[in-house]
Amino acid sequence: MLLKSITDPADLKKLSVAELQQVSEEARTVLLEKISHHGGHNGPNLGVVEMTVALHAVFDSPRDKMIFDVSHQTYIHKMLTGRGQAFWDPAHYSDVSGYTNPKESDHDLFTVGHTSTSLSLANGVAKARDLKNEEGNVIAVIGDGSLSGGLAYEGLNNIAETGTNTIVIVNDNDQSIAENHGGLYNNLRALRDTNGQAENNFFKSLGFDYYYLADGNDLTALMHLFKQVKDSNHPVVLHIQTVKGKGFKFAEENREKFHAGGPFSLETGDYLANSGGETYSTVTTDYLLEKMAQDPTVVAVNAGTPMILFTPEQRKIAGSQFVDVGIAEEHAATMTAGLAKNGAKPVWAVFSTFMQRSFDQISHDLSLNNVAGTILVYGASAYGMNDESHLGIFDIPFLSHIPNLVYLAPTNKEEYLAMLDWSIDQSQHPVAIRVPVGPLESGRVDQTDYSQLNKNQLIQAGSKVALLGVGNALGLAKKAAAMIETELGITPSVINPRFISGLDTDTLSGLIATHQLLLTLEDGLLEGGYGQAVASYLGKSPIKIVNFGLDKAFHDRYQTNELLQENGLTVDAILREVRQELSL
Amino acid sequence: MLLKSITDPADLKKLSVAELQQVSEEARTVLLEKISHHGGHNGPNLGVVEMTVALHAVFDSPRDKMIFDVSHQTYIHKMLTGRGQAFWDPAHYSDVSGYTNPKESDHDLFTVGHTSTSLSLANGVAKARDLKNEEGNVIAVIGDGSLSGGLAYEGLNNIAETGTNTIVIVNDNDQSIAENHGGLYNNLRALRDTNGQAENNFFKSLGFDYYYLADGNDLTALMHLFKQVKDSNHPVVLHIQTVKGKGFKFAEENREKFHAGGPFSLETGDYLANSGGETYSTVTTDYLLEKMAQDPTVVAVNAGTPMILFTPEQRKIAGSQFVDVGIAEEHAATMTAGLAKNGAKPVWAVFSTFMQRSFDQISHDLSLNNVAGTILVYGASAYGMNDESHLGIFDIPFLSHIPNLVYLAPTNKEEYLAMLDWSIDQSQHPVAIRVPVGPLESGRVDQTDYSQLNKNQLIQAGSKVALLGVGNALGLAKKAAAMIETELGITPSVINPRFISGLDTDTLSGLIATHQLLLTLEDGLLEGGYGQAVASYLGKSPIKIVNFGLDKAFHDRYQTNELLQENGLTVDAILREVRQELSL
Repeated sequence: MLLKSITDPADLKKLSVAELQQVSEEARTVLLEKISHHGGHNGPNLGVVEMTVALHAVFDSPRDKMIFDVSHQTYIHKMLTGRGQAFWDPAHYSDVSGYTNPKESDHDLFTVGHTSTSLSLANGVAKARDLKNEEGNVIAVIGDGSLSGGLAYEGLNNIAETGTNTIVIVNDNDQSIAENHGGLYNNLRALRDTNGQAENNFFKSLGFDYYYLADGNDLTALMHLFKQVKDSNHPVVLHIQTVKGKGFKFAEENREKFHAGGPFSLETGDYLANSGGETYSTVTTDYLLEKMAQDPTVVAVNAGTPMILFTPEQRKIAGSQFVDVGIAEEHAATMTAGLAKNGAKPVWAVFSTFMQRSFDQISHDLSLNNVAGTILVYGASAYGMNDESHLGIFDIPFLSHIPNLVYLAPTNKEEYLAMLDWSIDQSQHPVAIRVPVGPLESGRVDQTDYSQLNKNQLIQAGSKVALLGVGNALGLAKKAAAMIETELGITPSVINPRFISGLDTDTLSGLIATHQLLLTLEDGLLEGGYGQAVASYLGKSPIKIVNFGLDKAFHDRYQTNELLQENGLTVDAILREVRQELSL
Repeated sequence: MLLKSITDPADLKKLSVAELQQVSEEARTVLLEKISHHGGHNGPNLGVVEMTVALHAVFDSPRDKMIFDVSHQTYIHKMLTGRGQAFWDPAHYSDVSGYTNPKESDHDLFTVGHTSTSLSLANGVAKARDLKNEEGNVIAVIGDGSLSGGLAYEGLNNIAETGTNTIVIVNDNDQSIAENHGGLYNNLRALRDTNGQAENNFFKSLGFDYYYLADGNDLTALMHLFKQVKDSNHPVVLHIQTVKGKGFKFAEENREKFHAGGPFSLETGDYLANSGGETYSTVTTDYLLEKMAQDPTVVAVNAGTPMILFTPEQRKIAGSQFVDVGIAEEHAATMTAGLAKNGAKPVWAVFSTFMQRSFDQISHDLSLNNVAGTILVYGASAYGMNDESHLGIFDIPFLSHIPNLVYLAPTNKEEYLAMLDWSIDQSQHPVAIRVPVGPLESGRVDQTDYSQLNKNQLIQAGSKVALLGVGNALGLAKKAAAMIETELGITPSVINPRFISGLDTDTLSGLIATHQLLLTLEDGLLEGGYGQAVASYLGKSPIKIVNFGLDKAFHDRYQTNELLQENGLTVDAILREVRQELSL
């Protein structure tokens, strides 16, 4: 393969256009082979094969700075910058991350995994270049889907004002993760339909010099365009139409399904893993569809990841009771506040990691206004996504200290659905629910009155030792209690706090007289977490407190069990702690 | 005054246009009289007198829902909705807040104080209306300055797609708090210059039906326009040009100075209070101007509140080493990351309350990438702004649990400047500095090596009792220590932690043998704060821990000393606690 001879982008400079075309074709073949076995972001990478080859053939990375939005579309970039082995050698498939990573290569400027940041990063990089009186191009590559995020607009708005070289490439494949939402997309469509000539050009309205390229999978045309704007002395937008999933029929035909996913058959286009069975996701979907059918004011809100709630067919059933606002979590939070204030019953479903984009909106619009919107927090756990840019472990410090907001941690299906049903129909507070992660557990029918805030559930009354397990960690608390009973002959109290945003001071105070040791367990960040609030409340009491949780770090591609073990979240470690603190 | 007969907007419906004009003039006179004595948001309210009268004369609040962005421009709205006494009767000047507030009136939908939220709120309110099959107009009033925030764009983008009634009023006075920044403002200017006819209309590009009104202080023209779009069955944008500060010469001439402030002389346009003297603000400005002169890569970044760093004249001196990105904190944070990554030395100055708009950007773009940008956090304290929508008390839970980020709490001028100087020149971590609030305190020259992270300063070595005072609270710790010495004959240890984002475990462990009681003091939120991390760390030790901090609530227009007293942050309360816990 000619591709294998490319160890640095400089190697591309020596090749003819025909050879570069060959490199592109080889890269797509290697890519398909890897992703079909390994999974990953499939469609986004298939669509930018030629664009990436052209970028590296025309520009001079790392002198020219390339910044890829979300950076999940950089597999070809990695192949061309010395990391090809991770793509063509199955033994090395896991050597590189799925995102840009400065630890891997000087050609990667930033660790990125969230959308809409590339333009602001580029604006800073270009400004630093100007302050240092240096030369070189700054190139930001952003997909149309990422343009729905407000930060992308802030970036465009500021780049337009800067007046020096920044090349913004809008990779328009007419698709976000799912379909696009927002008025902008009519403009992009109009621009595509008119070969970039539509009136009221969004980019021109912001002051950009604008170029349109209809076939963004045409290597020659791409190189021509890039040469045209290279070393431009002012900001430009290149609006380039590409085909998401290009070169793999099934991915071109079903762009949502093939945005990302695990190993699939090249022959049939079917994903190999077929989960099936009831999960916390399926029970949420079933519950919501039924609730919406009963009550026309129940409305599900989502920001660009609708598949976590509904399939395309289910979205049709939900009809106007489902709103996808595009990748725009700030808007989702604030719209949820507006919906609740005017008498609707909104349920906003969001991944823990993406929720981080909406702190002020959750704090002010929902919580200061104390309106009854519901937030379903997905993937909030050490068991959630494990890339350092997609961690779900920060939710408790993030959410639970916001006044008025009620944050709930269910531990099984019945408890979860009871909390969800209560939350939707109450009108007192914003409520967030930490959707359990992992296999569905079934418990007893839950008839708790959740309007009595901050009441913990006493799973087992004991003495000497108390174990408090937050959400997903309750299972560990129960297992540890059984082991303590077996090994030490002590029956510990076991507590399910249920409420993370406030303490059950009666229950906690009640432990003091009969317990010497309280252990809190949570599978999120230790610092700023629930256990520390417990330690503070009991700080004057003679009871010893040990808080278990995760250390403060951006853990990357970890094995969950290893991470929990490193942080003492195992039955053995808990038993050891109990022996030591009780001097047994 | 005819104005005094208006107790409800319905009263306006009975008046002739001439009488409405009279109401407008009376309202402006009353407004000027109040703000000149009481202070407030001067320019924004003077500019919308006629618009507000016209809105209430044409639309039917509260059936029609009016949502005001930031809501600092609602003084006239309050006058016309039953709250006039708070404007014409000096004894009642403090009866109403400076923002909309549902507790005051059904005509106020939301408690709002941050910019750029009105469109998303309106989008939710309109959607709820549609789900309930109700009628009525939803009207969002947003200033041009607020359009630089990404959330405003997300709101526009989604309203455009909704397809039912939402009336977006862009109140364009060609001014943010200071001057506007971003490509959008060239488009707004082009639209003003062409009576709304410029090509590449930003709003039309997003799909809006667009109307332009050149004289937004002409009551008749406003009423005509509002009648034209009332009950529109689709989203519209009304781009209305107004004069900020209208009717008060000094405010029209100096729009930045008269955005907010007060009291001032109606005759001379001078503010009555003249602070003078050295403050933490002036030493920051002086330091930065000098540092920038020495090092061309030092760059100050700000998001729409440049006056916290530099006067207009100083901005000219700073030149290209100062960037105001408009009201766009997400961009400011992410641009700061880009600047730092490419070798500049950025210092982003931001109010604690507005920093809340950039959690994910601080976490990912700065901290996950671990780049050496500096954040100066202003007003982070119970002594900061005291409106419930502008609280500065959430910064420690917000910032200090983000991995890699170093959060510092200086307690006097020398320590502050030493930390700032260290932060700018180091290249290891993002650093945030909690700029002290209140009168400047001078201490000894500080030659601490801050690259040794998490080293506390032992102010006084004692026994039995230890007091740990975070930032602004160190003064209280010292005073309480003196009182404990006097009253109880105990010399407490006094600790200045300096680092909020990590514990000095050596110092803390060293207390155990010789101390029975440790009190932590902070003037921010107790929950998720520094003290709770200390309590957790010492949870197994016999030392008793008492954490003092503010209770979790959106405190509104509080007296700082009262709030501190309610939360035990006084010398007396601390002394009482010591007596009790040591059984003295």
